[in-house]
Amino acid sequence: MATGFGADVYARRCEQALAAATEAGLAGLVLTPGADLAYLSGYTPPADTERLTALALVPGAEPTLVVPALERPAAELAPAALRYADFTDGVDEYRLLAESLPARGRLGVSDSAWALHLLGLQRTLPGTDWVGLSEALPMLRAVKDADELARLAAAGAGADAVFEQILGVRFAGRTETEVATDLAAGLRAHGHEQVDFTIVASGPNGASPHHEPTDRVIGEGEAVVLDFGGLADGYGSDTTRTVHVGPPGPEVREVYEVVRAAQQAAFEAVAPGVPCERIDAVARRVISDAGYGEYFIHRVGHGIGLTTHEPPYLVAGETQPLVPGMCFSIEPGIYLPGRFGVRIEDIVTVTDTGGRRLNDSTHELQVLS
Amino acid sequence: MATGFGADVYARRCEQALAAATEAGLAGLVLTPGADLAYLSGYTPPADTERLTALALVPGAEPTLVVPALERPAAELAPAALRYADFTDGVDEYRLLAESLPARGRLGVSDSAWALHLLGLQRTLPGTDWVGLSEALPMLRAVKDADELARLAAAGAGADAVFEQILGVRFAGRTETEVATDLAAGLRAHGHEQVDFTIVASGPNGASPHHEPTDRVIGEGEAVVLDFGGLADGYGSDTTRTVHVGPPGPEVREVYEVVRAAQQAAFEAVAPGVPCERIDAVARRVISDAGYGEYFIHRVGHGIGLTTHEPPYLVAGETQPLVPGMCFSIEPGIYLPGRFGVRIEDIVTVTDTGGRRLNDSTHELQVLS
Repeated sequence: MATGFGADVYARRCEQALAAATEAGLAGLVLTPGADLAYLSGYTPPADTERLTALALVPGAEPTLVVPALERPAAELAPAALRYADFTDGVDEYRLLAESLPARGRLGVSDSAWALHLLGLQRTLPGTDWVGLSEALPMLRAVKDADELARLAAAGAGADAVFEQILGVRFAGRTETEVATDLAAGLRAHGHEQVDFTIVASGPNGASPHHEPTDRVIGEGEAVVLDFGGLADGYGSDTTRTVHVGPPGPEVREVYEVVRAAQQAAFEAVAPGVPCERIDAVARRVISDAGYGEYFIHRVGHGIGLTTHEPPYLVAGETQPLVPGMCFSIEPGIYLPGRFGVRIEDIVTVTDTGGRRLNDSTHELQVLS
Repeated sequence: MATGFGADVYARRCEQALAAATEAGLAGLVLTPGADLAYLSGYTPPADTERLTALALVPGAEPTLVVPALERPAAELAPAALRYADFTDGVDEYRLLAESLPARGRLGVSDSAWALHLLGLQRTLPGTDWVGLSEALPMLRAVKDADELARLAAAGAGADAVFEQILGVRFAGRTETEVATDLAAGLRAHGHEQVDFTIVASGPNGASPHHEPTDRVIGEGEAVVLDFGGLADGYGSDTTRTVHVGPPGPEVREVYEVVRAAQQAAFEAVAPGVPCERIDAVARRVISDAGYGEYFIHRVGHGIGLTTHEPPYLVAGETQPLVPGMCFSIEPGIYLPGRFGVRIEDIVTVTDTGGRRLNDSTHELQVLS
């Protein structure tokens, strides 16, 4: 996933994770392939499969990585200093992992751990109870250090360059898929080793926030939502701009300005100590006051880091206060079923005094041919 | 994932799944994004995330797909006839799904469902207990129908064409990564929309079965393990051949012949009614008798279909009898640490009378330049 950091970085992160776990009343953590494991060990297995790969983090014990024997050589290249325990097919891998875990108490497990593996652990350690990491330690990876911020900023700058470039291609008469292919090529040309999404949603398709590009031909007089991102040097980009093919009518202009004002107001509300849900509420208020409240059908944002979707979530009910170093999207939208949609999204990081955008493409409605 | 089949195919599969579930004492099934959901509904969401997407299958009730509101338009394009229940951010999605599930009893859940989601369901339905589908209904997707077999055969033929092609490229003096790039391009050129793995393991790297290609330069006089596959029209390919750069010495020849004999013996043992573990034992016996038993460090094979790794697993302890229509790999190997490795792998399907290979590249050791 990411190009690794030094062993000291992982040792520090493991210490911090254990301190946070203890404070949250957890007796240990089980991290499985994906961002949690990459964050704490630098290791990403070739694939996340029915064969268990898991890092056991328990106070006072050496971090232990349980791996299939056939992947141990790859795992030993992990930059973190780890103890390894491997198993061959047919061996009870849950019993092996359990040897590095407490027999009772509350344990945290990666959100995306396979249900199969969690069930195996619950069966093997009947005295334990389990909680997902995003619930137990939601902020584990949320505050980025300087190295991580630099990578997120570079990923954002790459995505901005892609938007700049896409303004020069033809939209009218081409399909959504063709423009999406341009976006993907642009992301790869601008430092991304992985493309996660390239939403091109034209006309009525824009009213579906997670629309997958189709062979629909983009027409004159249509709004087009472009939402794209991926991983560059292991860290995520995610930006959205809505453009218009030919001159926009008054309704599109009005909706666009409401979304733009909502995005700006939410951005200006960012500051240390402000609860996450407040950022959502600020954007929602602007949109509701303009009469479009029922057409803003998702939360205003999500964290970003080793993945393009992670805590903190900026959503009603999330009272977590913002902390300098947190990075997340601010992406209000208005979706008019059967007609069109508008969304504007930047990645923003919390500074000591407010917020700083990691995307800075223009927010002016771009009119294309 | 796959190009869809007709609604009748999914209706039949749901019926069969429910019948099997009832017979296994299950009160219902929860299928999450991936092969299970694709198999039973034809739907694959843009991504598998912290937002729940799940199909509830319960006897006597309409199959119900719980989806995030913002993905409902995409979900409604699923070829299966489904009832939809959507939720917006902040709503308790587990409570919504629970409305379509029994309040007590044993329920099956997709192996790769997120732990986060399983924990949410366990909390919401304290009267239930849960089991992974590969344990409860391991053979749910194992027996392929004629359409599926045709797609697997086409994927296998594509992979064989890639091997044929790679014999013409230069190995000596190029890096593993360069050859892996050739393999990936070959898979795409031969009908694969997704490349899952392109293992190129030269010299001592060949002793690591799941080696990831590196910048190691392939040398004269080295064995190179090539293991590659992906999805073509939604169905998997997976084949391995070991080639040699320059004339092989007597030890490589000997090890190669042992692996070849083991693969052939295991293939010849395939027939309806034979327990899965028997195929593993037959291959292992050949390798042990030759004195290399401790160097064959993985099971002999795994099922293949909508994924490249699924039940049936051909491993000690798996007593499931083979059934016509099952498809799986037979891939014995010998791994000599620090020296070299040899593996030969074909996909095989069970016929009414024995086995049929879906790969037919030569098993003769190919000597390259």
